[in-house]
Amino acid sequence: MVAEIVSGLEYSKKVLQDVGEKIAKTREHHPHFDAVLAIVQVGNRSDSNVYINAKLKKAKEIGANGKLIKLPDTITQGDLKREIMALNHDNNIDGIIVQLPLDCKHEIDADAIIDLIDPLKDVDGLTRINAGRLARGELQRTIFPCTPFGCLYLVQQATGNPNFVSGKEVVVLGRSKIVGSPAAALFLWHHGTVTICHSKTPNIKEKCLRADILIVAIGRKHYVKGEKYCQLKIEKMCGISKKRMLIDTDWIKPGAFVIDCGINVGDDPTSRKIYGDVDTEAAKEVAGYLTPVPGGVGPMTVAMLIRNTYEQARRRRLAGKDEDEQ
Amino acid sequence: MVAEIVSGLEYSKKVLQDVGEKIAKTREHHPHFDAVLAIVQVGNRSDSNVYINAKLKKAKEIGANGKLIKLPDTITQGDLKREIMALNHDNNIDGIIVQLPLDCKHEIDADAIIDLIDPLKDVDGLTRINAGRLARGELQRTIFPCTPFGCLYLVQQATGNPNFVSGKEVVVLGRSKIVGSPAAALFLWHHGTVTICHSKTPNIKEKCLRADILIVAIGRKHYVKGEKYCQLKIEKMCGISKKRMLIDTDWIKPGAFVIDCGINVGDDPTSRKIYGDVDTEAAKEVAGYLTPVPGGVGPMTVAMLIRNTYEQARRRRLAGKDEDEQ
Repeated sequence: MVAEIVSGLEYSKKVLQDVGEKIAKTREHHPHFDAVLAIVQVGNRSDSNVYINAKLKKAKEIGANGKLIKLPDTITQGDLKREIMALNHDNNIDGIIVQLPLDCKHEIDADAIIDLIDPLKDVDGLTRINAGRLARGELQRTIFPCTPFGCLYLVQQATGNPNFVSGKEVVVLGRSKIVGSPAAALFLWHHGTVTICHSKTPNIKEKCLRADILIVAIGRKHYVKGEKYCQLKIEKMCGISKKRMLIDTDWIKPGAFVIDCGINVGDDPTSRKIYGDVDTEAAKEVAGYLTPVPGGVGPMTVAMLIRNTYEQARRRRLAGKDEDEQ
Repeated sequence: MVAEIVSGLEYSKKVLQDVGEKIAKTREHHPHFDAVLAIVQVGNRSDSNVYINAKLKKAKEIGANGKLIKLPDTITQGDLKREIMALNHDNNIDGIIVQLPLDCKHEIDADAIIDLIDPLKDVDGLTRINAGRLARGELQRTIFPCTPFGCLYLVQQATGNPNFVSGKEVVVLGRSKIVGSPAAALFLWHHGTVTICHSKTPNIKEKCLRADILIVAIGRKHYVKGEKYCQLKIEKMCGISKKRMLIDTDWIKPGAFVIDCGINVGDDPTSRKIYGDVDTEAAKEVAGYLTPVPGGVGPMTVAMLIRNTYEQARRRRLAGKDEDEQ
């Protein structure tokens, strides 16, 4: 089996195009309608600059708007709090995100800062109240975190089945606040049977092998491998070329949907090459579907952020207005 | 193997005695110290009356205090909201719970009501913000829901190992807000590898068989069975007595820790007999540890509620005071 490579790049274009069309249509009836994403950046990390520029650019491209609030690395928790509160009260801001990690000289509790964001403007879905709603399956009352939302969208679109997750065995590697934990909740409430693995899980490979859908968000380059990769590597090392060794080192159930959320920078400091948590070349011989890195979950995350911003703008700005006119 | 029956009744006495001693000791330095649990009841369900009386009685027994706020079934959402807000502002109340289900004539959004409780007085751990904190592993900043907390305590105490959960395969049946979902989060953040099963999970038996720790909160009488039970039943039906049939109908991994959160009323309306989700007689032949119903998780839930109330009273009333004097 050779896996279908699920292009997040292509699907993200589709999402963004769809949001762009909706904004244009809304403006036919409401010429002043806007969807504005505020990005709060503390300091000046170069990787953050790259991500922020991508978000602002994509928003602009489809007719939404972005606003960068760039704050000095000397800012205090109190001043940062005031910035967030001002954005909460700014009627022209629809979504607020805080670019992580913070690059700051003073100690700042990033979770406490994010928790100040108005839940209705929390387009990253990272406030505790929205995380709590998601954990309890209140899907209509929360905002889905962008990376897990992108993962779900890819599964639904690539399989052509909005209910594909239901009844499937889903294994999530990693339990971070941003990807692993909310992905587990999102797939659980789309009726998957979800197992969460982490650094304290023994025999992770054995758990992965159960997965109909494998979501990898563990932050280690090529952690998950496929059968062929290991065979070829051993053949190469041992000089075996004709008589293949069969070894049990595979991590992926044949036909599984493998979603790679990893973004790992390679060892070479001169190159900006990014590696996933899954060894794509190896895994694609076993998996049924596979998201590549780069060009998989990454662009979907940006697209879902802009989609969330539009949805919140629509709800807030057009509340009580006729649905037809939206 | 015959399972050790883990008496929640006995362990709950230990928890309550410990809390009672702490209250007495605190009063040596702070004679006016109190720990007061407010229970909000809407209507007059007879089962609720039984549970509420048990909570108030246990609190009294160990020197804490309870206050029942019994409201008519004609109350509106607005009036109920005002009751909660008054309790939030009442300096003499340390914990607030809303007895569920509500018995009311008007439509009331119980989740929205519970969410009004001050997170620091949320001793049932059911507000969205506390659920969000638990889901993300912020264990120091949340309050553990009482039933999952009782389950964890039983595992730690019966095995004599506070880290018993770490690295274990934990399977949770059910994803309710009160038991299944928070139990999954609590055991995950005690480093179990957690799988959550529910009504859309196929082959639940197969998933249960993986569990080192099986938490059953599915609300169906004797849903989980043991091998012997099935054998005996078939022998009885078929008249086979000497030549035993071996059939694959067992749900429990030999030696597993089985926690039964079920409270199911039997079919006989004249008896008040309560059944668990696990067939204890059958399961005890396979499991390593087994919590009975009644006398297992039920009394632990009450004990943990009072413990949570004491802890919040200590934090709120003695904030800033010398730890030695507490």
